[in-house]
Amino acid sequence: MNAVEVIRTKRDGGTLSDEQIDWVVDGYTRGLVADEQMAALAMAILLRGMAAGEIARWTAAMIASGERLDLSTVDRPTVDKHSTGGVGDKITLPLTPLVAACGAAVPQLSGRGLGHTGGTLDKLETIPGFRTRLSNAEFVAQLRTAGAAICAAGEGLAPADRKLYALRDVTGTVESIPLIASSIMSKKIAEGTASLVLDVKVGTGAFMTDLDRARELARTMVSLGTAHEVRTVALVTSMSTPLGYAVGNALEVEESVAVLAGGGPADVVELTLALAREMVELAGLSTDPAAVLRSGRAMDSWRALVRAQGGDPDAALPTAPEVEVVRATVGGYVSAVDALRVGVAAWRLGAGRARKEDPVSAGAGVLLHRRPGDRVGVGEVLLELRTDDASRIEAARAAADGAVVISDEPPEPEPLVRERIA
Amino acid sequence: MNAVEVIRTKRDGGTLSDEQIDWVVDGYTRGLVADEQMAALAMAILLRGMAAGEIARWTAAMIASGERLDLSTVDRPTVDKHSTGGVGDKITLPLTPLVAACGAAVPQLSGRGLGHTGGTLDKLETIPGFRTRLSNAEFVAQLRTAGAAICAAGEGLAPADRKLYALRDVTGTVESIPLIASSIMSKKIAEGTASLVLDVKVGTGAFMTDLDRARELARTMVSLGTAHEVRTVALVTSMSTPLGYAVGNALEVEESVAVLAGGGPADVVELTLALAREMVELAGLSTDPAAVLRSGRAMDSWRALVRAQGGDPDAALPTAPEVEVVRATVGGYVSAVDALRVGVAAWRLGAGRARKEDPVSAGAGVLLHRRPGDRVGVGEVLLELRTDDASRIEAARAAADGAVVISDEPPEPEPLVRERIA
Repeated sequence: MNAVEVIRTKRDGGTLSDEQIDWVVDGYTRGLVADEQMAALAMAILLRGMAAGEIARWTAAMIASGERLDLSTVDRPTVDKHSTGGVGDKITLPLTPLVAACGAAVPQLSGRGLGHTGGTLDKLETIPGFRTRLSNAEFVAQLRTAGAAICAAGEGLAPADRKLYALRDVTGTVESIPLIASSIMSKKIAEGTASLVLDVKVGTGAFMTDLDRARELARTMVSLGTAHEVRTVALVTSMSTPLGYAVGNALEVEESVAVLAGGGPADVVELTLALAREMVELAGLSTDPAAVLRSGRAMDSWRALVRAQGGDPDAALPTAPEVEVVRATVGGYVSAVDALRVGVAAWRLGAGRARKEDPVSAGAGVLLHRRPGDRVGVGEVLLELRTDDASRIEAARAAADGAVVISDEPPEPEPLVRERIA
Repeated sequence: MNAVEVIRTKRDGGTLSDEQIDWVVDGYTRGLVADEQMAALAMAILLRGMAAGEIARWTAAMIASGERLDLSTVDRPTVDKHSTGGVGDKITLPLTPLVAACGAAVPQLSGRGLGHTGGTLDKLETIPGFRTRLSNAEFVAQLRTAGAAICAAGEGLAPADRKLYALRDVTGTVESIPLIASSIMSKKIAEGTASLVLDVKVGTGAFMTDLDRARELARTMVSLGTAHEVRTVALVTSMSTPLGYAVGNALEVEESVAVLAGGGPADVVELTLALAREMVELAGLSTDPAAVLRSGRAMDSWRALVRAQGGDPDAALPTAPEVEVVRATVGGYVSAVDALRVGVAAWRLGAGRARKEDPVSAGAGVLLHRRPGDRVGVGEVLLELRTDDASRIEAARAAADGAVVISDEPPEPEPLVRERIA
């Protein structure tokens, strides 16, 4: 077998055999297939697609490239959640302790932000003392004691995916449903969870801007999970408007804590509960997440989780000193708040990174003062921009200007959960 | 500008701007664009294609990546020939001295064989003493004195192409008309020739097995030449049957010398004269190549060329000691001799290389004893396999068996020159 033969098969629209997939994924992990060869193959996969059988085998080969966590010593039912990423998407923060408080164990291996979408680990690291790197043993032990852990995936899980993900990022081969689905699912399956709820975002602020593509991605991932005996359900949810009012690392932690305290923005609460209900049901439990949230037990669980990972749940979070506001130039109803523009503005303010080595600012970000449907008068504040570095404001304003659209009529309300795929 | 943006433009079916092309070709040459990024772009180009304007700019950028030879001190009109490569294609060897003897100067920068097709430099290096590496100054000086030189392209000519060609070879991105055309033409234009005749092969033994694709490649290259003020004509010629009776390095030199001596296989003579007529006409000369060949002046020119490059035109060529024959198992007419199978057999016998670092055997190869249209009786010899290494015979026989097809009726004769594109 050789790499050129594998590349040519896919290039010419053929189906890769199981042997070809196993060989090329293993060879790439071990450095026998070169980066330039995998880049050409990834582009051929992006443009030619993959059949369901190929995606399943590719995922299996990525899982087989590393270790698979054994969560059998965790006596509670395990259930995890993955979001494909959006602007203001802090749902993991209230959701994980809430579901743990409902009686499940939540093994959350999370990622960092890249581009205009934030990352759960970046948010948690704004809490003084919080450690996002746990050994496998620490991770499993914390699941047993606290019922939840949120940390970075260890080096040993799906190393093929780790290498391929970095390659795709620099070769314009991110936007391929087979490659996205196999990347997400190989990590989640290797993590050892028994069930999984997927939050597949669609809209201007998501990787998938088209409902058909989002639905295809959701179906592909549900099939992969099921094939690997991970009970999997996907919700396709709207990401045209940022979630909540806060976009930025510490800002989103604050908003998440407000949800756990029984308040917080209606859309964040709605999506947290919708995902929690799916997770609780998949875990075979009959607890009502709304009741648990009201009871304060989710907040207790959050505080236990933060402490277990070295953080101080009572510490003040960093704030960014430079503040600029964007005001309405006309009056009317807010008809849209463009998630992509807000995400790019937050990124430029320092909340996100352009390269994975870059640091992020804890306090930087955007606060929405108005959301779709709200009335606004001329001169009233629409957005608040926060940054550590005043020189970043001009570029952020360029993205933020035009993010909030004002019309004479209020918009038709859009459902947050668009579809459920099981 | 960044590489991912350029890759995404082509990936999504867009047209690369002049600025994008200039930036990515220059960046790749200088190592700022990584191999894996160029590999992804090459695959996107292969699958999405390029418009005429993009191919022209890409070619210009590859020429601009290095030096351009100045042949203005050569007082004869310069004209070169390029073949896209075939099995038994030794035409450069008799053609170059023939056209020089007609009064033109022939600046032949040639390549080595890769895969089942042979390379001119590998053939010439079987002549004891022959040097295929000349400095630019030596190359130009020899054109002035001997009227012809056949050597490897210097490092300074189109370095972007040199790097990209090696990359395409390992990434399954060879078979792209825009990339093939720009690769060939960037080298030929940088070489400084005033006119150029292209021999575009079509058939089982060629890179292009389809007449439409061969015609498209020929037209693309003729347009590129014309745009750069190189008078360019292409012949599309058949490569379903090997050219002549000899396939292998020294074997083909011997057959070429036979042509220069006034004999040789009819098809090799026919194609040599057809290409020579085009070259002589493009050079603005009125000499008749057939008369020059008969006169013996082409042989004189050959001997002068070999001597000028350090070779001994009277030296015996290496032969391979191990000989095996393939015999007819039925009688009838030879209806086909599959060029690909013969090429692969010769390659396996040692005449070709799998990787560009590999050495080749001087004496190894295949001799045809019968060609299409010939009668053959049971047990008569069809092919003779020669090698330095008897262990290679079995694999070569596997390719050679079935190469010669025998039928009850003789085949319809197929024209050697299929089309002329000017």
